[in-house]
Amino acid sequence: MFESAELGHKVDKETFAAEAPKLRELLLDAQFDLAQAPRFPVILLIGGVDGAGKSETVNLINSWMDPRHIETHGLEPPTDEERERPHMFRWWRQLPPKGKIGIFNGSWYSFPILQRAHGKTKDAQLDQSIGRIQRFERMLLDEGALLLKFWMHLSKEVQKKRLKKLEADPLTRWRVTEQDWEHFEMYDKFRKICAKTLQATSTADAPWTIVEATDFRYQALTAGQFIHDALRRRLEGKASQPLLLAPPLPPRLDSVNVFQTLDLTRRLEKADYEVELERLQGRLNLLTRHKDFRKRSVVLAFEGSDAAGKGGAIRRVTGALDARIYRVIPIAAPTDEEKAQPYLWRFWRRLPRAGRFTIFDRTWYGRVLVERVEGYCAEVDWMRAYGEINDFEEQIHRNGTILCKFWLATSPEEQLRRFEARRDTAYKRFKITDDDWRNREKWEAYQQAVCDMVDRTSPSHAPWTLVESEDKNFGRIKVLRTIVERIEAEL
Amino acid sequence: MFESAELGHKVDKETFAAEAPKLRELLLDAQFDLAQAPRFPVILLIGGVDGAGKSETVNLINSWMDPRHIETHGLEPPTDEERERPHMFRWWRQLPPKGKIGIFNGSWYSFPILQRAHGKTKDAQLDQSIGRIQRFERMLLDEGALLLKFWMHLSKEVQKKRLKKLEADPLTRWRVTEQDWEHFEMYDKFRKICAKTLQATSTADAPWTIVEATDFRYQALTAGQFIHDALRRRLEGKASQPLLLAPPLPPRLDSVNVFQTLDLTRRLEKADYEVELERLQGRLNLLTRHKDFRKRSVVLAFEGSDAAGKGGAIRRVTGALDARIYRVIPIAAPTDEEKAQPYLWRFWRRLPRAGRFTIFDRTWYGRVLVERVEGYCAEVDWMRAYGEINDFEEQIHRNGTILCKFWLATSPEEQLRRFEARRDTAYKRFKITDDDWRNREKWEAYQQAVCDMVDRTSPSHAPWTLVESEDKNFGRIKVLRTIVERIEAEL
Repeated sequence: MFESAELGHKVDKETFAAEAPKLRELLLDAQFDLAQAPRFPVILLIGGVDGAGKSETVNLINSWMDPRHIETHGLEPPTDEERERPHMFRWWRQLPPKGKIGIFNGSWYSFPILQRAHGKTKDAQLDQSIGRIQRFERMLLDEGALLLKFWMHLSKEVQKKRLKKLEADPLTRWRVTEQDWEHFEMYDKFRKICAKTLQATSTADAPWTIVEATDFRYQALTAGQFIHDALRRRLEGKASQPLLLAPPLPPRLDSVNVFQTLDLTRRLEKADYEVELERLQGRLNLLTRHKDFRKRSVVLAFEGSDAAGKGGAIRRVTGALDARIYRVIPIAAPTDEEKAQPYLWRFWRRLPRAGRFTIFDRTWYGRVLVERVEGYCAEVDWMRAYGEINDFEEQIHRNGTILCKFWLATSPEEQLRRFEARRDTAYKRFKITDDDWRNREKWEAYQQAVCDMVDRTSPSHAPWTLVESEDKNFGRIKVLRTIVERIEAEL
Repeated sequence: MFESAELGHKVDKETFAAEAPKLRELLLDAQFDLAQAPRFPVILLIGGVDGAGKSETVNLINSWMDPRHIETHGLEPPTDEERERPHMFRWWRQLPPKGKIGIFNGSWYSFPILQRAHGKTKDAQLDQSIGRIQRFERMLLDEGALLLKFWMHLSKEVQKKRLKKLEADPLTRWRVTEQDWEHFEMYDKFRKICAKTLQATSTADAPWTIVEATDFRYQALTAGQFIHDALRRRLEGKASQPLLLAPPLPPRLDSVNVFQTLDLTRRLEKADYEVELERLQGRLNLLTRHKDFRKRSVVLAFEGSDAAGKGGAIRRVTGALDARIYRVIPIAAPTDEEKAQPYLWRFWRRLPRAGRFTIFDRTWYGRVLVERVEGYCAEVDWMRAYGEINDFEEQIHRNGTILCKFWLATSPEEQLRRFEARRDTAYKRFKITDDDWRNREKWEAYQQAVCDMVDRTSPSHAPWTLVESEDKNFGRIKVLRTIVERIEAEL
């Protein structure tokens, strides 16, 4: 992995002085084009050994380019707002929007590597982390990001010299910490772990670029030219477009599907409903005041066909909660800040803090439902979404956040009755749009999409609950009971 | 203040049962109209004595209305991300966008009142806080918010009964804390402080509404109907539009202005410039590694006519800094999330954490410069902006954030030379737009706007630095020196 980066690569002063200004013009030019028509974000990872001039390189890139369109991030301890969310939250909130360059001096690789080196994790856990990183980066690339990964390398011998030299100079002595020497003692261990990690995460469209850091001029010019070439190639559309074709969906030879497990005739009489409602709301309210709940959080995902009763079901949940601890997020068209990010970004930013609920009225599943059926995104894009969504939910789960997902089901006949009732009601808030009527014509296609969704996104920690909502009372109670029982089981 | 709220107002069960469903329909209807065409945000403050059913009222309003368009906030301890910013940061980030309702159960009033009651502040400081609140709310109203302020009141006698009753019931006992009794002992003190605060902050367009909380049905119905009436009146444009006419600007009888204090012939030779640059960048870099800097932060505001050299000056500053500790924010058109908020919101959200720099390339002064000159906002709006900006900067200052503001000045002749050079250069990133040429024709109007700006927004903690930028080297060094000396003086 590091062989070519221990050969003593060098650039002499004159070459550097001649090349740097030219490179700077080229970089500014490419950056200008990127910012003028923001089509993709650039994500630059800078990793490497201590003393390998990572910060110097980042600073030089900033000075060569227009700092107004660069966001540089260091490896800081997470804030309390970050600690209460899944581990990747901090990186999601730092992702650059389209048209900007995000530089990560230290990244999602840092903790897995450090923890393994310090023996806090075993190989199996490092492999798990690598797997998660692979999927995360795959998603970034598929969402259109230009991802460039640099590893600044020093041989053991050169690293030792470098640290000694920094220590000898009173102006730079502060930069060498005890930790640096501690890490130096672990050089061979680090090298092995890093080589494994880098190899496993070097993909065709986002390989690691190992840069020898013995000579800063060589290092800086290599990084700068590489960034320019990659940026320019992508701007001019010369990057090889991955030819992703999902295999066709398996043929459906009969009409048996998961919905047939539902008995839509189930009903709950008003009197029973009211008793159950009060009892379950009481239990839910008590659970939110349980001392262990302060460290947990809840995400509720509501999907269902139009007029299936999502709003009513949500109100029966919020009715049990103190208004300060929940937020209901209706998912409509994304804002322009959201459109400049991967599609899951708008959901990441809404994940609840500890002790809170976030209730999504329609969710990230829009990708595999409406976007699929209406053809708003390509087949390969919604096909990959199943895996991306499973990753997202696994991270929510690992954070200790309780996730309940509901599909509210009615028959098409009942939907029609509700549409007609809404159409005829005086209150315009129940306005039925032309879209609603059109969607009815695609009932079969939506059913198919829902079945695929349930099949592909039901891990044991985040199962779908299909809710018979032909009778609203029955549906609401089933939703509430599911939530109460899940939280009780978790606390 | 509280007289009418101690008379034992009541609503009987039958009236409530008859009125509540009607009110709910009306509220949902008004809320639907608000969300359909988002023209303004609704900010609802709920204050009052302990045990006065504030949370119950908030929960009831949430259950009556559509919780998807309501954001309820409680009074939580600030997070570390909030503690590093000015005090009002936490409220700014919670402001509802246009079309939504933000309910604040506990608000910007809570700390000033509590601190005064506990003797941690004196009357003078309470008055200061009241003054700041008045100006903040004035800004919200002028920016179009519908601000409704409720105070839930109980007489001393009723409060005592209420607390005892809650304590007697095992289901509600947890809600009565020692602090509640402690506060009860201070009832008279609180009453006096609250009356003073409420009176001082009851304005014609955002008066406090005192609601007797002895009977929950009365309290809830009063709040609900009031919210509906205010919302409906505003939706139908019946709210009295404040007739704000700024007095005319004072006549200008001569052409003497602050720019004439500048000597644009000042120059710095290249050799001197390079020595100075390195020296000042070194000092600045050391300052950012000073241990006291970890608790401070810096905001740099750059303004100047087109081609005055803002970008170049900024790069000389960032060249001295580690890329991880600064962020350069170019101010262009606001995003749609920003457009749904008061115009200062987009700057509040970018304020730096401790130990960081935020550098604004163009700033909140756009309001009194381009927006004024181009007529993008009404005279009353930019006239009030001076005061709003002074408040904003005072809060930055009180937070310990060091604020430097630069106006980079050139002669119109030098600007023309730079425009022509840019037009003729090969690099398209220096593209000159038609707007740039048009703006030149308004040179006088811009000069006038700048003079007014300097006159009206130069408090001692946030003075303007006018920078002679006819010679770029001279300008850049003056900027750097100003920053270095300000930070040295502050640390």
